[in-house]
Amino acid sequence: MRGAVIHAPGDVRFETLDDPKLLHPTDAIIRTAVTCVCGSDLWPYRGAEPIRDPHPMGHEYVGFVEEVGSEVTHVRPGQFVVGSFATSDNTCANCRNGFQSSCLHREFMSTCQADYVRIPNAHGTLVATDEVPDEKHWAGLLAVSDVMGTGWWAADAAEVESGSTAVVVGDGAVGLCGVIAAKEMGAERIIAMSRHESRQKLALEFGATDIVTERGDEGVARIKDLTDGIGADSVLECVGTEQSMQQALRAARPGGNVGFVGVPHEVAVDGQELFFSHVGLRGGPAPVRRYLPDLIDRVLTGRIDPGKVFDLTLPLEEVAEGYQAMDERRAIKTLLTP
Amino acid sequence: MRGAVIHAPGDVRFETLDDPKLLHPTDAIIRTAVTCVCGSDLWPYRGAEPIRDPHPMGHEYVGFVEEVGSEVTHVRPGQFVVGSFATSDNTCANCRNGFQSSCLHREFMSTCQADYVRIPNAHGTLVATDEVPDEKHWAGLLAVSDVMGTGWWAADAAEVESGSTAVVVGDGAVGLCGVIAAKEMGAERIIAMSRHESRQKLALEFGATDIVTERGDEGVARIKDLTDGIGADSVLECVGTEQSMQQALRAARPGGNVGFVGVPHEVAVDGQELFFSHVGLRGGPAPVRRYLPDLIDRVLTGRIDPGKVFDLTLPLEEVAEGYQAMDERRAIKTLLTP
Repeated sequence: MRGAVIHAPGDVRFETLDDPKLLHPTDAIIRTAVTCVCGSDLWPYRGAEPIRDPHPMGHEYVGFVEEVGSEVTHVRPGQFVVGSFATSDNTCANCRNGFQSSCLHREFMSTCQADYVRIPNAHGTLVATDEVPDEKHWAGLLAVSDVMGTGWWAADAAEVESGSTAVVVGDGAVGLCGVIAAKEMGAERIIAMSRHESRQKLALEFGATDIVTERGDEGVARIKDLTDGIGADSVLECVGTEQSMQQALRAARPGGNVGFVGVPHEVAVDGQELFFSHVGLRGGPAPVRRYLPDLIDRVLTGRIDPGKVFDLTLPLEEVAEGYQAMDERRAIKTLLTP
Repeated sequence: MRGAVIHAPGDVRFETLDDPKLLHPTDAIIRTAVTCVCGSDLWPYRGAEPIRDPHPMGHEYVGFVEEVGSEVTHVRPGQFVVGSFATSDNTCANCRNGFQSSCLHREFMSTCQADYVRIPNAHGTLVATDEVPDEKHWAGLLAVSDVMGTGWWAADAAEVESGSTAVVVGDGAVGLCGVIAAKEMGAERIIAMSRHESRQKLALEFGATDIVTERGDEGVARIKDLTDGIGADSVLECVGTEQSMQQALRAARPGGNVGFVGVPHEVAVDGQELFFSHVGLRGGPAPVRRYLPDLIDRVLTGRIDPGKVFDLTLPLEEVAEGYQAMDERRAIKTLLTP
């Protein structure tokens, strides 16, 4: 089969690879329907994470079951399945608590920009649709496996409630999906922090009521202006830098909540500032598995359309261009078709 | 009148001071019934906080109303009142959200180890009891004005629920009151981290089911042993050091919560560790005003007896000895009687 391999910052190649095989009775092999490039793939691509040896890339997928291990009994070959970037047995104590992305047997996916993929913990990870969905929904379901699930988690962790005010820091695909989630959870006012016209437009289409282009202290001051001087009930931090985290914490009102889903890179939170802010903080890798049945339903019924975050579609063999377009911010997110 | 003044680390003196006067229409003057020394008073006493000029001390109080400003209409001279270390108008947006200790007009109390005290924002801060309570309840009501309110907030911020497992880090008066709160909120298992026999005994009396004497990594390992390997649902951080915060965060399970109420001193929380822990974190000065009616009722009906944290009672003029006894850990908390 063929798939993407990263060799060095800026150097992603499309190569011939060994076909994946079942290694454990809980594995499944799927044929990728569509896959994509994630904002977090740009960390190593930009040299912000070390690349020790060349390795495959990709952790987002929807596809057709090819083969299952003996303990994978809830899906069968031919079915269309949606999963998560973090696999889970869905039975351990952390899974039962709803934190499947902290499953005691968790394995992070990392080989999905390819024709075929081995899914560890398939028994607890994959959810099959009732029938093979119309192709128009594939992009939306793909989004559910990561960015939409993560945007939902950001809003959930930030405790967005009906009638509340939510701020979304970060206008990447996750932030935009965070806008969708905040809207679905009933936020009355959704303030998207963005300075890119195409992203602002999509944020407004997804339900944002206000756009703030300022950043840092000015951005925080603007949020305060819009929230009677006290800050927002909920802030979704969808970037992962020191600046974005600080902006998020300072934009929340006393007693408000920050849900942070951008993997923090060199971020330290000052204990005393957090203390006097009265802001609640929760983050982590999204427990996508918890949300899958609900989010799949919202996509298939047309209630949400997170597939719109893909504004560039390329054949899988052009994966390198997919990275480059996102790196140069020519694309929000690249869909790849095998 | 007479009151305590700190001059330098280790140097608290009992001096003659000017009687307090009403400065604003929202002020009240109270005659102190009982007051006390707080664990946080030990920070400057131990030189961990700078002392620029000699200044009065104390932020815990219950007493009798002497005089009220024109806008203080809900209490009248002669009534017995309970307040909070943080004053609040109880009407601003933050107060309405239940975070009175972030009131837009907040003033922290700082002159309460004295015969008389001026209470700013008395209209939104003081709660009068129906009648003058029996003296046996004064210590409990005094605890409510700070340490019991703070322990309650720690358990609330840590989202203690019926049937859950709670860990209390810190065996000072606040931690011990945290045990009371966790018990009242229905925690099934309450693990107190303490290595002092008298404090262990009180923790058990207040409802702790387990005592852990280990600290740091060993303490965390012990908590994991007691919680099926995953950690506790709720952790109450009642100290405020880097070590205690780290211990608290690592003792919580994925999806669990840490309520932190010890004022953090040189504490930085690593963003990436917090991210992958999936732990929710909320802290701050306790919104005691929110809890006052309920906690006063629990004390007066004898449901809780947080007054037991006072294991040393001294006349106010011996306030210096009160500090010293706590500094040397001869006393958990010193009650002072004017």
